[in-house]
Amino acid sequence: MTVFASDNVTSACPEIMQAINNANKGHVDSYGHDQWSKNLDKKFSNLFEKDVKVFTAVTGTAANSLALSSITPSYGNIYCHKISHINVDECGAPEFFTGGAKLITLDGKNGKFSAEELNKNIRGSGVVHNTQPSTVSITQSCETGVVYQINEINEICKIAHKNGMKVHMDGARFSNAVVSLNKSPAEMTWKCGIDILTFGGTKNGCLDAEAIIFFNSEDVGNFHYLQKRSGQLLSKMRFLSCQLDAYITNDLWLKNAKHSNFMAKQLSDKLSRINSIELAYPTESNEIFIKVPKSIQDHLNKNGYSVTPDEMFDGSIRFVAAWNTTQEDVNLLISKIEEKL
Amino acid sequence: MTVFASDNVTSACPEIMQAINNANKGHVDSYGHDQWSKNLDKKFSNLFEKDVKVFTAVTGTAANSLALSSITPSYGNIYCHKISHINVDECGAPEFFTGGAKLITLDGKNGKFSAEELNKNIRGSGVVHNTQPSTVSITQSCETGVVYQINEINEICKIAHKNGMKVHMDGARFSNAVVSLNKSPAEMTWKCGIDILTFGGTKNGCLDAEAIIFFNSEDVGNFHYLQKRSGQLLSKMRFLSCQLDAYITNDLWLKNAKHSNFMAKQLSDKLSRINSIELAYPTESNEIFIKVPKSIQDHLNKNGYSVTPDEMFDGSIRFVAAWNTTQEDVNLLISKIEEKL
Amino acid sequence: MTVFASDNVTSACPEIMQAINNANKGHVDSYGHDQWSKNLDKKFSNLFEKDVKVFTAVTGTAANSLALSSITPSYGNIYCHKISHINVDECGAPEFFTGGAKLITLDGKNGKFSAEELNKNIRGSGVVHNTQPSTVSITQSCETGVVYQINEINEICKIAHKNGMKVHMDGARFSNAVVSLNKSPAEMTWKCGIDILTFGGTKNGCLDAEAIIFFNSEDVGNFHYLQKRSGQLLSKMRFLSCQLDAYITNDLWLKNAKHSNFMAKQLSDKLSRINSIELAYPTESNEIFIKVPKSIQDHLNKNGYSVTPDEMFDGSIRFVAAWNTTQEDVNLLISKIEEKL
Amino acid sequence: MTVFASDNVTSACPEIMQAINNANKGHVDSYGHDQWSKNLDKKFSNLFEKDVKVFTAVTGTAANSLALSSITPSYGNIYCHKISHINVDECGAPEFFTGGAKLITLDGKNGKFSAEELNKNIRGSGVVHNTQPSTVSITQSCETGVVYQINEINEICKIAHKNGMKVHMDGARFSNAVVSLNKSPAEMTWKCGIDILTFGGTKNGCLDAEAIIFFNSEDVGNFHYLQKRSGQLLSKMRFLSCQLDAYITNDLWLKNAKHSNFMAKQLSDKLSRINSIELAYPTESNEIFIKVPKSIQDHLNKNGYSVTPDEMFDGSIRFVAAWNTTQEDVNLLISKIEEKL
Repeated sequence: MTVFASDNVTSACPEIMQAINNANKGHVDSYGHDQWSKNLDKKFSNLFEKDVKVFTAVTGTAANSLALSSITPSYGNIYCHKISHINVDECGAPEFFTGGAKLITLDGKNGKFSAEELNKNIRGSGVVHNTQPSTVSITQSCETGVVYQINEINEICKIAHKNGMKVHMDGARFSNAVVSLNKSPAEMTWKCGIDILTFGGTKNGCLDAEAIIFFNSEDVGNFHYLQKRSGQLLSKMRFLSCQLDAYITNDLWLKNAKHSNFMAKQLSDKLSRINSIELAYPTESNEIFIKVPKSIQDHLNKNGYSVTPDEMFDGSIRFVAAWNTTQEDVNLLISKIEEKL
Repeated sequence: MTVFASDNVTSACPEIMQAINNANKGHVDSYGHDQWSKNLDKKFSNLFEKDVKVFTAVTGTAANSLALSSITPSYGNIYCHKISHINVDECGAPEFFTGGAKLITLDGKNGKFSAEELNKNIRGSGVVHNTQPSTVSITQSCETGVVYQINEINEICKIAHKNGMKVHMDGARFSNAVVSLNKSPAEMTWKCGIDILTFGGTKNGCLDAEAIIFFNSEDVGNFHYLQKRSGQLLSKMRFLSCQLDAYITNDLWLKNAKHSNFMAKQLSDKLSRINSIELAYPTESNEIFIKVPKSIQDHLNKNGYSVTPDEMFDGSIRFVAAWNTTQEDVNLLISKIEEKL
Repeated sequence: MTVFASDNVTSACPEIMQAINNANKGHVDSYGHDQWSKNLDKKFSNLFEKDVKVFTAVTGTAANSLALSSITPSYGNIYCHKISHINVDECGAPEFFTGGAKLITLDGKNGKFSAEELNKNIRGSGVVHNTQPSTVSITQSCETGVVYQINEINEICKIAHKNGMKVHMDGARFSNAVVSLNKSPAEMTWKCGIDILTFGGTKNGCLDAEAIIFFNSEDVGNFHYLQKRSGQLLSKMRFLSCQLDAYITNDLWLKNAKHSNFMAKQLSDKLSRINSIELAYPTESNEIFIKVPKSIQDHLNKNGYSVTPDEMFDGSIRFVAAWNTTQEDVNLLISKIEEKL
Repeated sequence: MTVFASDNVTSACPEIMQAINNANKGHVDSYGHDQWSKNLDKKFSNLFEKDVKVFTAVTGTAANSLALSSITPSYGNIYCHKISHINVDECGAPEFFTGGAKLITLDGKNGKFSAEELNKNIRGSGVVHNTQPSTVSITQSCETGVVYQINEINEICKIAHKNGMKVHMDGARFSNAVVSLNKSPAEMTWKCGIDILTFGGTKNGCLDAEAIIFFNSEDVGNFHYLQKRSGQLLSKMRFLSCQLDAYITNDLWLKNAKHSNFMAKQLSDKLSRINSIELAYPTESNEIFIKVPKSIQDHLNKNGYSVTPDEMFDGSIRFVAAWNTTQEDVNLLISKIEEKL
């Protein structure tokens, strides 16, 4: 049992599975010429209140790296937080897809970097010896579960654009951030200046479905070839597109995220009331990081949880709530911890 | 309607969908630590009567390119047929994954090249100015639907190995070839000298599932990182691995391939009896290529088929039978053609 | 002794050595901010009767590959002759610099391909599965020593541009071709439609100096970073730029090429009068290819020449005249051959 | 006038120019088959008291990047100081040559990082999500002119090797460090555990000559192809190799470095006696960094010097002494500064 280990240890939610089963009928044009795929631009344009161009990928790593490769030259800099997923958890995929771009890591509290931190690290524009400032990438909600506020995104985008850079948002947990901020998808992205978004579905109830969303059509360029060339253009594309279709239909994505954020908050509240436990970061979406005595860690691992203190997260351990986290899951975890107090 | 357009316009077969639905239960370790993924090495080792190492990918393009990148240095030559999928249908993915290897294209009848043709094109070994002979890739069954005979594979592998090269088999339609030759998977691969295989599932009833199979453990190296780095390591890997698991359980893969080969043969026989139609290649697996008057092509396209004469295939049009092709599909196509005779 | 083995076995000519020695004075800004480097654009613009942008490289391989990388995306096709230097003699550098572009090899008599041959091999534009037609590359004078005629270049460029492609000229022996055609540099390049030129100096009297010449400033883009990033931006750039400066001053480059073409013609004439010897190609610049009995080959190799029959050149052996080839060199070679008749 | 701006604004020293002029005689086999090139392994093996393998490059950027690419996979980490040349001054060449390796930047006083700093930043070995610890690179003398002590190199190499990594030394100013430490080339490299060295000549009197030196023949692999493929294999290689040959003959390299270190020390001593000036780092080789009032900076720039305060160097300005720095150069600079006190 690995409940709470991550939001990717969960199954797919019923609506997504239904969509896949429904799509499994008859002969359908391949490589994105099916009805679901052809409809994605329109559906996402409605969702984002703007004409957007949508592409798909099966993993967040591929989606992020493809997105970055479309706005970053091989000699470009990508500014990102030092604990960002693209920097520490994708085995160098951004470097691979971009042909060798450089990730410039920034510091910042709670997994977020500030516009000032970004600003003071920009250097070398126009100098032939230096890799060139090209791209800024922020994760929303970020790796600690903390959420960038609208004004923070705004300021980062302003600095980026002022320096001729594009801004990418890694939205592996985009839904959780939207719910947390109670803002519209548009407000949290292009209205702030975001140029390109990785819109994640897999962690929030999909089987394997990520979208790359271009807010400016002029950035799209020949992206289609990059997607194909990286092995991300599925022949039976319907099975991916139908997931994204169902995911943004009837607010399924928000319903799932509301649930996981809510369960995370419950768990966080209960944990924070325990004396020997300290929240490493405020719980703003569906991830909880706590500092906890080793005895409790060991006890949890013995009881089927899977927790490891991580230096990158200040030595804390992580719990992630998901679309299907239950009240019983929360209670059981708390009771297991209480056994060791 | 695009029946016969390709074997990737079909839905997934019931057993595969059942496997996916069954896998969609409970919390499961991610990134390949689920029970289905962990079992793949063993299951495929049984199938191939040899200890093999198995990795997965969601597309044939990714599977081929990853496989090639594991045995080809950036300055290496990959010898392949000029109409091979890796050369003409993957938008340069092999070049991308290998960091710029060169595909040396070979000629040969019916989409197959011979050991002699290979032999006479090998040059430059040890010469610093030349890209280095590294890899040979054959497609089985090949792009024309014709199948390499065991002795042909044997001879190609001998020449390759004699020249210090490894041999890759693109088995997007591996199952159809196994059925066609009535040989075991082992006989058609490592017993002939094949070093690494792309084992396709998607075209024969899977939703999206390809395997990369190493017959020599010493070739595996750090393949895991290449897979992750290319965005092919799924977080919810169970949904891919369970497909491969079901696919090779109870001979499902052979059952499907037998059916599609059988329907292709029926269709081929009927077509070849029509005076104005000429088979471009012998029908040895599930693909049929015919030369046909333009009037018939137009008629077919007007009636929901999707046919285009392709110069690479000698101006012929293609029909592909699949696991779910019906007698009615065959009869309807024939009757549509006969309307125009 | 390896006289005639190639034009790169020669020393640098006196004017070039003088220029280098002259440049070796005092402190000079590095990385191209010296007076010679800063003057190149102007000097080459005069030479080509057009505003051009000039960059430098120390090898022809680097110059060609950098040039190609500036006009070819990673998913692009580069159409070139099958025996072109970029295809067979640069160890995959074009693939490396472009991030994996595909060289599509064309056939054609005497080392040249025709506009028709090019035209019939263009395919896949706009099709996501196919690498995209991007670039055409011709070598002038070509690898056999034969020279493209003005109208031939014109037609190739027309087909290329009609298909949205750019045209690169590998001018490792540009000077010999200019002399051979008795046309101006402008007439042989941008007036025919050439977009980018590798202008070689090394084979014609320089020590190590190649120029990359952009005829359209809009193609330059961020080329400077590509040059730096590939290790081709010399710190003591003056020593490279002063060579190019001297090379195109007072028609040195033409003087040298006239000499080598003239000596090649002399040698060719004498050789063609020998009964057992056959010219493989017409001698149009400074290279001579002859078919000759093995006994004579052996005799030459025993006497300090270095000849090897090359299948790519129809089994012929090659002699290359250079800026410093003497009448005695020619006579001695002929007399050595005559010893064995 | 840009005296003191860098050691690459200087001319080549007489012995090097003599060697080039001497090499410019007769016909010589190309691509490294000349007598100078063929002799490099032996000459450098003598110098390093060990059988070494030597390759050449024309720029430090190419030499470093080629060296790194031979020991770092595309998914590898290269640990280096945050102000290291490979990180900030090569426009991403290491990423380009390695196919996308990640430079992990370390902190440390005076431009050097410690074994502890290295040790605490190593992470992810064997974890598929993480780029893999592969390579450590130190610059000797480092970018601040400070020199790693023998025991410091030793400790860094121990940590590196313990973690399965190789160690690269960027020796653009190797000679200055050897002179500074008064140790043998062997003592400062392989005896400490260095695996591969970029041995610089250009900054210390050569025209353009860098060597890549392998201390372990098993690391060489197919380096020759990487060199060719990157456009660094000169056709007229004699002109590069003869420089390296002359450079290590009769201790020319040490003579030049002794001179530049000595002049730097003189200048440093004089500067440090000026009240309003502070040395940013101890002067241990041929580079001096000082913190100086803006009024003096402006005065220097008006008088033909070229100084810019650099944040990476704690806002200091840099002077570099070279093989040909004169007493008058030193005195003139001091007098110019004193004008403004």
